[in-house]
Amino acid sequence: MTITAFAQRLIDAIGADSVLTSADDIAPWLADWRGMYRGNAQAVVRPRSAEDVSKVLALCQQTATPVVPRGGNTGLCGGATPDGAAQNVVLSLDRMNAVRSLDTIANTMVAEAGCILQDLQRTASDVNRLFPLSLAAEGSCQLGGNLATNAGGVNVVRYGMTRELVLGIEAVLPNGEILHGLRTLRKDNTGYDLKQLLIGSEGTLGIITAAALRLFAPTPVRQVVIAAVTSPRQALELYELLFTECGSRMQAFEFFTGECVDLVMAHVPGVRAPFGERHPGYVLVELADTADEQALAALLERVIETAIERDLCADAVVSSTLGQVEEMWKLREEISEAQRADGPHLKHDVSLPIEAIPEFLTSAEARVRRVCPQVRPFIFGHFGDGNLHYNLSRPAGEAADFMAKHGEAITAEVLDEVARYGGSISAEHGIGQLKRDYFAKYKSPLELRLMREIKAVFDPAGIMNPGKLLKVQ
Amino acid sequence: MTITAFAQRLIDAIGADSVLTSADDIAPWLADWRGMYRGNAQAVVRPRSAEDVSKVLALCQQTATPVVPRGGNTGLCGGATPDGAAQNVVLSLDRMNAVRSLDTIANTMVAEAGCILQDLQRTASDVNRLFPLSLAAEGSCQLGGNLATNAGGVNVVRYGMTRELVLGIEAVLPNGEILHGLRTLRKDNTGYDLKQLLIGSEGTLGIITAAALRLFAPTPVRQVVIAAVTSPRQALELYELLFTECGSRMQAFEFFTGECVDLVMAHVPGVRAPFGERHPGYVLVELADTADEQALAALLERVIETAIERDLCADAVVSSTLGQVEEMWKLREEISEAQRADGPHLKHDVSLPIEAIPEFLTSAEARVRRVCPQVRPFIFGHFGDGNLHYNLSRPAGEAADFMAKHGEAITAEVLDEVARYGGSISAEHGIGQLKRDYFAKYKSPLELRLMREIKAVFDPAGIMNPGKLLKVQ
Repeated sequence: MTITAFAQRLIDAIGADSVLTSADDIAPWLADWRGMYRGNAQAVVRPRSAEDVSKVLALCQQTATPVVPRGGNTGLCGGATPDGAAQNVVLSLDRMNAVRSLDTIANTMVAEAGCILQDLQRTASDVNRLFPLSLAAEGSCQLGGNLATNAGGVNVVRYGMTRELVLGIEAVLPNGEILHGLRTLRKDNTGYDLKQLLIGSEGTLGIITAAALRLFAPTPVRQVVIAAVTSPRQALELYELLFTECGSRMQAFEFFTGECVDLVMAHVPGVRAPFGERHPGYVLVELADTADEQALAALLERVIETAIERDLCADAVVSSTLGQVEEMWKLREEISEAQRADGPHLKHDVSLPIEAIPEFLTSAEARVRRVCPQVRPFIFGHFGDGNLHYNLSRPAGEAADFMAKHGEAITAEVLDEVARYGGSISAEHGIGQLKRDYFAKYKSPLELRLMREIKAVFDPAGIMNPGKLLKVQ
Repeated sequence: MTITAFAQRLIDAIGADSVLTSADDIAPWLADWRGMYRGNAQAVVRPRSAEDVSKVLALCQQTATPVVPRGGNTGLCGGATPDGAAQNVVLSLDRMNAVRSLDTIANTMVAEAGCILQDLQRTASDVNRLFPLSLAAEGSCQLGGNLATNAGGVNVVRYGMTRELVLGIEAVLPNGEILHGLRTLRKDNTGYDLKQLLIGSEGTLGIITAAALRLFAPTPVRQVVIAAVTSPRQALELYELLFTECGSRMQAFEFFTGECVDLVMAHVPGVRAPFGERHPGYVLVELADTADEQALAALLERVIETAIERDLCADAVVSSTLGQVEEMWKLREEISEAQRADGPHLKHDVSLPIEAIPEFLTSAEARVRRVCPQVRPFIFGHFGDGNLHYNLSRPAGEAADFMAKHGEAITAEVLDEVARYGGSISAEHGIGQLKRDYFAKYKSPLELRLMREIKAVFDPAGIMNPGKLLKVQ
């Protein structure tokens, strides 16, 4: 087996057991989990410390070697998959997975980038605290990836995006310098907020190796309701009422169409329809609180009564047991699985100014149908924070590769319509490789210029995650 | 009256009624409200739009004319006061004070930088929403200043700092380009977060002319309790219990020492002592909720019972009327006034890792007493977010100018001790002119370098608020 001279320098720097060089060893690190992207690398490094990361990056910068940071490989945009260049080095954070500190007075947890999200949730819960970041990939995604992409998930309506949960970071810059910013302070007005630049930068500025995270009070008391609505407009009016009356107790407000429920019924065994009758749309709301189940149940009952009186929903069913809560969530969570079972389709992770969602849904569907009249939309998402999973399946009777052939033209229409409403072409998944051209198209020239110049400040040699997010000119 | 040729160009650009040039007209804009700083300027401009701001900045950049942005002039660090250079232009945002939009479904408010904070609170409250930023200067401070300094205040423990309340900004860069970033999206993962760079940058990168702000559910139901504690350690244990049981209902957790209460009693008429007995420390907690006064009162009663059982406080008194709530807050809020009445003193707005506060208070006092054995500490602050107002008054019997003569040596000890614990030398007031040397001393060389290089990206000519925050090398 021959290795490159550079790989040997990596081994000399951080040890042979931290550097993979054989084609077989490297192969699993070269593709994304969906198999949409595949690239090359001369080595995979698995550092055990920020100091290891520092040594690797310094060597890479000296030799203009591209570095591709890698977390749990659960991303949807190819952000952690190398491009085709043979000299790439993939840098995995998976061995940096310690929780360095945990404090239930300050309500902070300092964790390394390789920690699995679910492990962090459990660590917090073991000391009667909540780390609220929660998303479908939580069993395998890593904190570093959550930070690099500013991950969202189901609890954003209450707790915010990942960036809102971070008090400080430790990061390594491409020249090997370590930014020691693991402050656990809630208030710190001393200069520019460098951590917020690195969070969400998709590994293009440096590598976050650890973060000081905020913890919250546990919310063991939960109530879930599914309401039937006649339209997205009615769903928003219901949202307005619930927001006013329930405040921060509301930790999820999900919307999905009748078509989504039909699809789940058709493809997923063991899921029950929420109502005898089929409705045009459904809303799932979760309230949670620190204590007093009775008070929470009474509040929800009162608000749902008001909603029905004011004609803000057609019907509603409230959970009264944990089993029912889980069953309600299953209906929402199985939409993706049902759509996968139905065959290849287009996913669009977009966000809109919330009040514009109903109008957008009408105008976007009209645009899409001009390109593909028989397309089947399956719309669902986190309505409470304006985030739509605007998914489109092929017309009935078409072959499975229909979207592979015609999808790009449809996507262009959807994203252009999102931009027309001042929405975002990537609500929570990031840009990566997948949306880089759309990003360049819809971001203003001024914003693109500032981002490129900031990139040059952090990464003058341009080694960090090339081909992702920004086109460097 | 002669005016400079440059002032004439400003008049030509945005109109004579938007440019002040006579010495009398300019004079009120040259000093901070406390009279600690005074500077010079050739003109004061009062633009009516982002386009006006753009014209002014472009002219200033072309001619290397320094620009000092100015809000409500309530800052404590001299950040909005020009230095001594005769060619300065003060740019006041006071005429840009429109609320451009307000939405109770999206829960957003787009407001211009010159809006008075209290007016924004009222605008939100008029539509049954809460804009939670609240601080002593709210009757005269402006949103632009709140954004430039990332203002804090009393509700940070629940709602966060100003930066956490912002969804998007409109800003003008020194070259006159307008950054149109007034997005109202809760989720938008498209590139680096430029708005968070501008927020808290103290006018050194550009001028924020408007912001899209988050609104929250109204919390008309309030309960306040004052608890007597034997030590800061006990106060933190009480905090831990309240945080666990009350969660996000807790919107203030304030601590103050027995000495602070003594001072208020001595100097402020009409304030009553909270208990018959005098205690070493006091905690004021405010809970607030959207609805159900009875449930909130029952929760507080239960938690306070637990606290007394577990010996987490010595005594407690709960408000039962709005009048009592206000009286309790008055005790806390009059500490600054009482200290002012007592005479000139040192203020230190610092933050600490919360769990380290008790140890810090002991070790900091020991350090300070080595320099000034008879100093009188009056310690209070927002314990729940680690923010201390670590204020020190002159020894009894010393002349009023004692701190003017000896204060700097004492401040150096306090801030060095803060830094030793990983705290922040400026929790919520910013750096401005006042703390620029300490900022340069305690920030790491890497962070300082990155900030200077980012400054050069936004403001290559170095015209924005020179002499504030960063020393540009």
